[in-house]
Amino acid sequence: MGGMVNMKLLKDRIINDGRVIGDSILKVDNFLNHQIDVSLFNEIGKEFKKRFDGVNITKILTIESSGIGLACITAQYFNVPVVFAKKALSINLDSEVYQSKVFSFTKNTLYNVFVSKRYLKQDDNVLIIDDFLANGHAAMGLMDIIGQAGANVAGIGIAIEKKFQEGRKKIMDRGARLESLAIIESMAGGKIVFA
Amino acid sequence: MGGMVNMKLLKDRIINDGRVIGDSILKVDNFLNHQIDVSLFNEIGKEFKKRFDGVNITKILTIESSGIGLACITAQYFNVPVVFAKKALSINLDSEVYQSKVFSFTKNTLYNVFVSKRYLKQDDNVLIIDDFLANGHAAMGLMDIIGQAGANVAGIGIAIEKKFQEGRKKIMDRGARLESLAIIESMAGGKIVFA
Repeated sequence: MGGMVNMKLLKDRIINDGRVIGDSILKVDNFLNHQIDVSLFNEIGKEFKKRFDGVNITKILTIESSGIGLACITAQYFNVPVVFAKKALSINLDSEVYQSKVFSFTKNTLYNVFVSKRYLKQDDNVLIIDDFLANGHAAMGLMDIIGQAGANVAGIGIAIEKKFQEGRKKIMDRGARLESLAIIESMAGGKIVFA
Repeated sequence: MGGMVNMKLLKDRIINDGRVIGDSILKVDNFLNHQIDVSLFNEIGKEFKKRFDGVNITKILTIESSGIGLACITAQYFNVPVVFAKKALSINLDSEVYQSKVFSFTKNTLYNVFVSKRYLKQDDNVLIIDDFLANGHAAMGLMDIIGQAGANVAGIGIAIEKKFQEGRKKIMDRGARLESLAIIESMAGGKIVFA
């Protein structure tokens, strides 16, 4: 029941502050990925903890930039470190990295993502956290990296899923456990319909 | 005294897990900007709250990517939203933006940073939070953006300051209040000396 309340909080926020552009773009930069409502993130983090209660999780993995805040707030309820995959090599990154390719629809570019080999190990049970699931490119890239490390994908926690795109199917095909808190069935005509 | 303990925690971590490259690069990707020790961030956030106790703060501003986690964790102690400046225009960003230029030493590039005009207003009192202060490029860019919005810079909170670089002087020249939790006087010969 607490979970239902939390999801309602997020869904209400999407309805009130989300802006639909075309039939597939949802702008939630008011509270999720430009301005951040940290108290809402706390509720989302608690809900992820409920959904994955009893699952052995040793690390949370996300991807820069918009997943980082949610991953950090969520990690407080799991008492595990966060690792975020980087989109560019810098002198701050080690030379020994796991690497995958991710296509960004919102920026219309294909880019490499990197995780230092120091921070993912074979005995890690990794929870992937991200703000959005659409076509699943980011989730696939992170699962690829976890696979390269020989680690285990414990699950995937998503704040907002656009179910009418390909992400869910791709994740199901890989057999990973997916928990999305607000699942959007359709945005046709600018109207948000939850599943 | 709590503050002293917190700072010791961060300084010990820098000594134990930081890696000095050359005389000026400090890699702390083990706990700060690739893998993130969220419980350490909680202590840093509490310390920022102590340092800026009684200061009117309505918003925390940071810059993607490595400032986001620290800003979100810190925001829990101030009960204000976080806004993070973006480094690239995307379809998720509004067309009406404040914009500034920032040079990244670690990536050796000059890039634009953007904040939607929706999320910084004239009556905002803004606390800038970032993981590092070195040459002050990011802090200057964020102060520039706050100025464009007609908002007030309430202060700047930094986890690790490299005092032997130009950042502190630039911020002092602007008359802003700077609180750095671990101030490094020198890293010559690979040895970290705190101020």
